[in-house]
Amino acid sequence: MADDRLSRVFAALADPTRRDIVARLSITDATVGELAEPYDVSVQAVSKHLRVLTDAGLVSRSRDAQRRPCRLEPEVFDLMTKWIERYRVQAEERFRRLDAVLAEMDDEQRATDDRRGAAS
Amino acid sequence: MADDRLSRVFAALADPTRRDIVARLSITDATVGELAEPYDVSVQAVSKHLRVLTDAGLVSRSRDAQRRPCRLEPEVFDLMTKWIERYRVQAEERFRRLDAVLAEMDDEQRATDDRRGAAS
Repeated sequence: MADDRLSRVFAALADPTRRDIVARLSITDATVGELAEPYDVSVQAVSKHLRVLTDAGLVSRSRDAQRRPCRLEPEVFDLMTKWIERYRVQAEERFRRLDAVLAEMDDEQRATDDRRGAAS
Repeated sequence: MADDRLSRVFAALADPTRRDIVARLSITDATVGELAEPYDVSVQAVSKHLRVLTDAGLVSRSRDAQRRPCRLEPEVFDLMTKWIERYRVQAEERFRRLDAVLAEMDDEQRATDDRRGAAS
C-alpha cells in the first residue's frame, strides 16, 4: 500500500511541469486556469498533470462550486523524506564503518613500520 | 540540466524494485547477480533497473574486471531533499501566515463581542 503510494509520489515529481505546479502551489492555491496561464500547453494538459498530482495525494481540489482551487498537501513530502533519510543514514553509517576499518589498518601498518624501523 | 537530473532521480525511485535495490545497496555493494537473487525476475530485468539507477547517478559500477559491483551514491539524495525541503518550508510558512490571520480575526471578533456584551 505505502509502496504504491510512494511510487506514485516519486512518479508524479519526475516531471518538470508537475514540479513547477507544486512549487507554485506552495506559495498560493490556484485554479487550473491560473496554473495553465504561464505554460505553453493547453488547460487539458495541465488538468492531466493535476490528476497525476492529486492521485499521488500531493494536491487536493476543493469541491466549492466553479473555482475549485488546487491546494498543495505538503504532508505527502514526509513519505519521501522518511524513505530517503532512512537509506541515506544507513549508507553514511556504512561509509563511517569503512573509514574506521581503513584508519585501523593504517595504524597497524604504521606500528609495523615503527617496529621494523626500531629493529633495523 | 539540474531539472533533467532531478526528473531522472525521481523517475528512478518511482519503482518498488529499484527502491529495494537502493535499500540493499545502502547496506553493502553487490554484483548484478547478487542483486537479482531474491527477485523473481531475470538478471536482464535487474540489469535494466540498474541502468535506470546509474543513469540517474544513484548507483555507480566499478570498472574492476568480472565482479563490477554496484555501489550506492547517496549524495544524489541531496538533490531531492533540497528540492522537497524548499517547497515544504514555503508551504509551512504560508500555513503559518494563514493561521496568524485567522487568529487575528478571532481576536477582533472576540473584542467586538466583548464591547457588545459591555454595552448591553
